[in-house]
Amino acid sequence: MRYRIDFSYDGTNFKGYQKQPNLRTVENCINNAVSYLNGKETFIYAAGRTDKGVHALNQVAHFDLDKDIPIDKIKRGLNSNLDGDIHIISVKKVSNNFNARFNVKRKEYIYKINMNEYNPMDRNYIYQYNKELDITSMNIAIKYLIGKHDFTSFVSSEDIRENKVRIIYDASITVKKNYVEISFIGNGFMKYQVRNMVGLLISVGEGKKDCNILEIINNKNRSQHFKTAPACGLYLKRVMYK
Amino acid sequence: MRYRIDFSYDGTNFKGYQKQPNLRTVENCINNAVSYLNGKETFIYAAGRTDKGVHALNQVAHFDLDKDIPIDKIKRGLNSNLDGDIHIISVKKVSNNFNARFNVKRKEYIYKINMNEYNPMDRNYIYQYNKELDITSMNIAIKYLIGKHDFTSFVSSEDIRENKVRIIYDASITVKKNYVEISFIGNGFMKYQVRNMVGLLISVGEGKKDCNILEIINNKNRSQHFKTAPACGLYLKRVMYK
Repeated sequence: MRYRIDFSYDGTNFKGYQKQPNLRTVENCINNAVSYLNGKETFIYAAGRTDKGVHALNQVAHFDLDKDIPIDKIKRGLNSNLDGDIHIISVKKVSNNFNARFNVKRKEYIYKINMNEYNPMDRNYIYQYNKELDITSMNIAIKYLIGKHDFTSFVSSEDIRENKVRIIYDASITVKKNYVEISFIGNGFMKYQVRNMVGLLISVGEGKKDCNILEIINNKNRSQHFKTAPACGLYLKRVMYK
Repeated sequence: MRYRIDFSYDGTNFKGYQKQPNLRTVENCINNAVSYLNGKETFIYAAGRTDKGVHALNQVAHFDLDKDIPIDKIKRGLNSNLDGDIHIISVKKVSNNFNARFNVKRKEYIYKINMNEYNPMDRNYIYQYNKELDITSMNIAIKYLIGKHDFTSFVSSEDIRENKVRIIYDASITVKKNYVEISFIGNGFMKYQVRNMVGLLISVGEGKKDCNILEIINNKNRSQHFKTAPACGLYLKRVMYK
């Protein structure tokens, strides 16, 4: 029996998403809860990893159980074996063809920035930039990221995978009460890619980089003097299938 | 030289506001930072205490320094000696007549409730009620709290102070995207008073108590079967002087 779970987590107190021996990771915690339910070691397969400190509003995974358990009971059972910083939002029975990782079509990530006074309540959830940014320039710059590009300029130089071409279908910035939210919808994002794109946009908003960032993209080189935005502002918002 | 500070804090990881030996309280932390600045033990005097787990968007205190230090430098100095869960928003030089505690005219507290699905990011900042409440009934009930009342029904029976009469100038409920925010403006609030008033309103919203709560107020007795709402949803929003 294959099940799909949609879940959210507060990344603050995890050593990242991915399972690792003897570390508190999101995957370890859910694997344990699912194993307990299934009566034997069982693994979940998620749409993708998120880095240490990154949050998820709606991550997706699948797993297989030996027995047919009512989905309400699975939701309650898993949540009662998870701490307050992970939450199973929904459980659905799916066909064995469903693969939460390989069937992903699009993902949306959002990044939150506070341009107001520092707010202690939000310190782990919104990047406390606490100064004004030139949003007009950032709005011009972000459009250059839309489309099919080689995103080598936005991944760690240690990332040795061959294909760094990805598609960004949409990217936009909204500002409400001096809180900035940057959204990216794409077919996939590499490690640090979103945080590096946001870091470059912040450099543009600071006037340190020109809003025409095409050359930076085309240089295919990470050593171009912009920072990686902090993990705490980043959220996996949704995963889209089919 | 007397100074007024306006500050915010995330109550989650403090053992309450009030100074206590060998405990991490908000007052202890700020006293330490002010003492460091003043070169000798110095105390702050705040508008009032908040309970363990309660947050402040804008608390106010005063303190006296031996030397005349520029206010920008005080703000920077204090913030650099405080952890990320307290933040000095502003520092002002005030006359020696200003007393942050005794000059208070009004305070506003707000209480936040989430009627949507559980959200791990908000678990320490919004009460995760995660079900619908009957807001119409709560809106009727809250009006009975406005005015000058003996609020004995809303304080711990262990609270032995004589005068439990307080004035609530305004109380209202707003709902946005299924997030409830309850606001109370009054001349002063006793320990647990706001959380007990919210607890009663939640009982009304659940249909367990009638929306005419006048009898409950007039009974002047805490033993009337409604809960104290959790600390995490409560914020001291502002303190008003003169």
